[in-house]
Amino acid sequence: MKHSKIPLSQTVVGLCKTLCVRQIVISPGSRNAPLTIGFTHNEFFKCYSIVDERCAGFFALGIAQRLQEPVALVCTSGSALLNYYPAISEAYYSHISLIVLSADRPKHMVDIGDGQTIKQKQVYGEHVVYSANLKLDLKDDYQQTKDDELPIFKNLENKLERFLGLQKDIQTYNEIEIQSAIQMAKGQSRPVHLNIPFEEPLYETTEVSELKFNLKTRPRVDAEIDSFELEDALQLWHKAKRKLVLVGVLQPNSIEAQWLEELARDESVVVFTETTSNLHHKIFFPSIDQIIAPLDMVGFEHLKPDIVLTLGGMVVSKKIKAFLRTYKPSEHWHVGPFEANDTFFLLTKHFKVSLNAFFSNFFEALTHTIKSDYRSHWLNVKRHRLHQHKAYIKDIPFSDFKVFSDVIKSLPKNSQLHIGNSSAIRYAQLFNSPESIEVFCNRGTSGIDGSTSTAIGSASVANQRTTFITGDLSFFYDSNALWNNYTPNDFRVIIINNQGGGIFRILPGHKNTENFDIYFETKHKLTAEHLCKMYGFDYASAKNQAILERELNTFYEDSDRPKVLEIFTPSEINDEILLQYFDFIK
Amino acid sequence: MKHSKIPLSQTVVGLCKTLCVRQIVISPGSRNAPLTIGFTHNEFFKCYSIVDERCAGFFALGIAQRLQEPVALVCTSGSALLNYYPAISEAYYSHISLIVLSADRPKHMVDIGDGQTIKQKQVYGEHVVYSANLKLDLKDDYQQTKDDELPIFKNLENKLERFLGLQKDIQTYNEIEIQSAIQMAKGQSRPVHLNIPFEEPLYETTEVSELKFNLKTRPRVDAEIDSFELEDALQLWHKAKRKLVLVGVLQPNSIEAQWLEELARDESVVVFTETTSNLHHKIFFPSIDQIIAPLDMVGFEHLKPDIVLTLGGMVVSKKIKAFLRTYKPSEHWHVGPFEANDTFFLLTKHFKVSLNAFFSNFFEALTHTIKSDYRSHWLNVKRHRLHQHKAYIKDIPFSDFKVFSDVIKSLPKNSQLHIGNSSAIRYAQLFNSPESIEVFCNRGTSGIDGSTSTAIGSASVANQRTTFITGDLSFFYDSNALWNNYTPNDFRVIIINNQGGGIFRILPGHKNTENFDIYFETKHKLTAEHLCKMYGFDYASAKNQAILERELNTFYEDSDRPKVLEIFTPSEINDEILLQYFDFIK
Repeated sequence: MKHSKIPLSQTVVGLCKTLCVRQIVISPGSRNAPLTIGFTHNEFFKCYSIVDERCAGFFALGIAQRLQEPVALVCTSGSALLNYYPAISEAYYSHISLIVLSADRPKHMVDIGDGQTIKQKQVYGEHVVYSANLKLDLKDDYQQTKDDELPIFKNLENKLERFLGLQKDIQTYNEIEIQSAIQMAKGQSRPVHLNIPFEEPLYETTEVSELKFNLKTRPRVDAEIDSFELEDALQLWHKAKRKLVLVGVLQPNSIEAQWLEELARDESVVVFTETTSNLHHKIFFPSIDQIIAPLDMVGFEHLKPDIVLTLGGMVVSKKIKAFLRTYKPSEHWHVGPFEANDTFFLLTKHFKVSLNAFFSNFFEALTHTIKSDYRSHWLNVKRHRLHQHKAYIKDIPFSDFKVFSDVIKSLPKNSQLHIGNSSAIRYAQLFNSPESIEVFCNRGTSGIDGSTSTAIGSASVANQRTTFITGDLSFFYDSNALWNNYTPNDFRVIIINNQGGGIFRILPGHKNTENFDIYFETKHKLTAEHLCKMYGFDYASAKNQAILERELNTFYEDSDRPKVLEIFTPSEINDEILLQYFDFIK
Repeated sequence: MKHSKIPLSQTVVGLCKTLCVRQIVISPGSRNAPLTIGFTHNEFFKCYSIVDERCAGFFALGIAQRLQEPVALVCTSGSALLNYYPAISEAYYSHISLIVLSADRPKHMVDIGDGQTIKQKQVYGEHVVYSANLKLDLKDDYQQTKDDELPIFKNLENKLERFLGLQKDIQTYNEIEIQSAIQMAKGQSRPVHLNIPFEEPLYETTEVSELKFNLKTRPRVDAEIDSFELEDALQLWHKAKRKLVLVGVLQPNSIEAQWLEELARDESVVVFTETTSNLHHKIFFPSIDQIIAPLDMVGFEHLKPDIVLTLGGMVVSKKIKAFLRTYKPSEHWHVGPFEANDTFFLLTKHFKVSLNAFFSNFFEALTHTIKSDYRSHWLNVKRHRLHQHKAYIKDIPFSDFKVFSDVIKSLPKNSQLHIGNSSAIRYAQLFNSPESIEVFCNRGTSGIDGSTSTAIGSASVANQRTTFITGDLSFFYDSNALWNNYTPNDFRVIIINNQGGGIFRILPGHKNTENFDIYFETKHKLTAEHLCKMYGFDYASAKNQAILERELNTFYEDSDRPKVLEIFTPSEINDEILLQYFDFIK
């Protein structure tokens, strides 16, 4: 098999294969040529070429999230790897495995005035769970490198033997570091960084057979529930009349249906799910803000639970967080294999196991449910709100709110939906998304910087149609996302273009001043039409209800190219319609 | 004056004014609203609004480089400030002052599951020269924050007095940190980071009069030359028959004309300047690679200096660096107020003073020049090369090489030229740029990630026309650069579009395979035409010599909008023409 002549490159590529890291996103460069050559000439790997490293990072994130397997990122030296950082921080907080393989100059060439050279070591700080600087191979002319970690051994008799011994030590060191990093990325489901020094010549190739490695497999110990802790929890659960289960970001099918049924059987349990929870049950509460926003103090006192049980990752709704920080339950338990966020400053228990493992133990030991009118009360509220919601929708004019309602309804069955950050995800939370639709959003850092790239990365490996709903600022921010050869033809983008950062009009700023327009809303007159021409997307736009309906009718039909539908909404009324909604559904 | 109600915001804004940080580049966000309100309502400041923080960072860099004064960057919390990082590393290595003012949540709200929250503290690692986490103001209802740096003082009698005392301590701490950071940015001419926590409410304003601050001004001690060191240097200089002065990146007019004349008077001195040196003298050598590339071992032995004296920042020419690492002079001295790069692994002296201070002392103490044929020999070589250069140009077809020759000649007098990285700057080095033209290029990290934004930032404050010459990949990489309201109408972009990363065809890769096309050259068929339509730039293209000449004829005429000229060159012959050039000029 064709490979770079450089042993370190062979080791990195070989171990990626041995440890089943198959998806490789490469950005062009010269210093990383040994890796690019190795990965792209080996049929085991699925390689992608993306020029802009910021997009490459999020594209990889989309793949990793979809396939639930680690994805490697390969870039050249210098500022290239800094452009991955937004995606790295998102991956860190969303528990997605990314493996950065950054090429670097040898250590003695850093900070001496060479080009494309920065302090790459540990550049992601605490946003990766493992970071290693691999060691340069020795040169086979025995010339001592200036690498200060290598002992100097001038005037020794048996240089060759020494050389081979040292090179073997280096090889072993590198193998251990690479294995540790990849295993850490998998175990923690978070990003890791391997910084990899290469010396010129970078382009020489050789034919090598498959490398074999000694894997130090550590037996995977599944965490177990502490039985005392569980016993204690059950005692409290048996007595508590109000339990609120709050579900944040979850992969589809994270919880077995039988456990959802168990939760649904208990009338003292209210389950709040978010759009990104990918959990559905007719007796759950899928639009948290719809319930909470209109409440007064009496309502809050009514909702205040004895126990709050959180599942999954980040929670979008600010209102539920503010509520639980003010009306503190006595207990907050979190279930999940990773860290537990003390979101309400009162975390009392953390069951550090998978959700199914927890529920299996929990419901097995549960002896009875308690009588309570907690859920029935809130189901009444929910019914009322839904009724009002429908009435409100009927009467409002064409606006962000109305458009979201129509767009969510239009989504094809069994497809996946990616949602941009800022107002897009917040609006989406107000509408029930159909059960067959899987929903994703970058809620780790909630940035607008890479949602399109993430959606396209995911779409490129999904066996499902993908629709991406985004605001205008978020879409233009990540416009380079369209610059790739991997966007499937059935990929669909819906841009809700309200000519600026619509979310700022909802916040308590000082609207309708020039200062506000420029520095907060950042008003603009841009459209996505030209980008679509540039990158070969079909384009349509809608600026009123009739056109929108017409366009949505055919939007998901098969096509030769991916499609964008840009919907222009009136920014001057959007905020009022949203704010009045919360009044109306009271 | 209208201001945020939050004291910390008032302090930051007030100290920026007091310390003359006038240029403020703001990206929209909510957490940074207190700063945005403060800066934009104060007429002292010149504020800019740029949505994409990666572009904002480079835009600010362009302003700071042009005005030679620090520029502040203001962004919201979360991944926003990570997008500044490419510009921060460029500023670090290019000695440009940027002051990042990142809004953050209070410390106790980090890593508890809130949105747009990452570990912002010291996120730029060693690529900033100062980094501080400012402290949250106390709440005036005396409610203790959870900030663990604040002592807890429950059950104390005189809470109000305590509160005021503590708040004053916090205020003092913050003032000292802000002053230190800004002074460090100015003194070191490098980026610094202030991370600034704010609590809601973020939008409340108040009328405050100008704040007064006690400035701790440290008397600025100008570094002096060690007289023994100078004496030692002079002794060596007096004796050496071959001195090579190598000039990297320099601001225009960095060295007084009299010192250039002194250098030019000495026949044992060869001065190699780069396009980015902004230094001109008929007896200097402005195209380093033209001299060096065709040399054989005999030639190198001839060129090998006794002393190499480096001035300025980074050096583009890889060939001169490789040469001096192999044919090592006995002495390498560097002159400059900042760090000295040991580029050739033999640095012997560093005169840590300004260039003019050094030359003033040096030439005053110099007693004589030594007889030498060093320069006359190389002037003969230079004459020969220039003759061959002209002959070569005459005969070659339309190509990158020919286009650069024509474009450089076309530049309007007394204008500034920005050059993109990778092949653009390398080609530009082969042609003499006219003396009245000031040249800039991001050579700190040599990235392709922000050259357009830098050029536009610079153009927005320059009292000169600005032309930006760039390759296609670099231009598309930073396409969001065009998304701003500050591009002057006389701004000109020349894109040399060879449908991919032309530089990879020059490197020793494996051309003309599918693998090479995708992962190295990253071939594409994109044009800038659609981006121009989107962002309101005039657009013209040229795909042969005749059209190019016609377009250049009118390209610099006054216009209502900035202009792009995209020149399509034949990628399959570009590399051969460049490689044959070095043969031809032998």
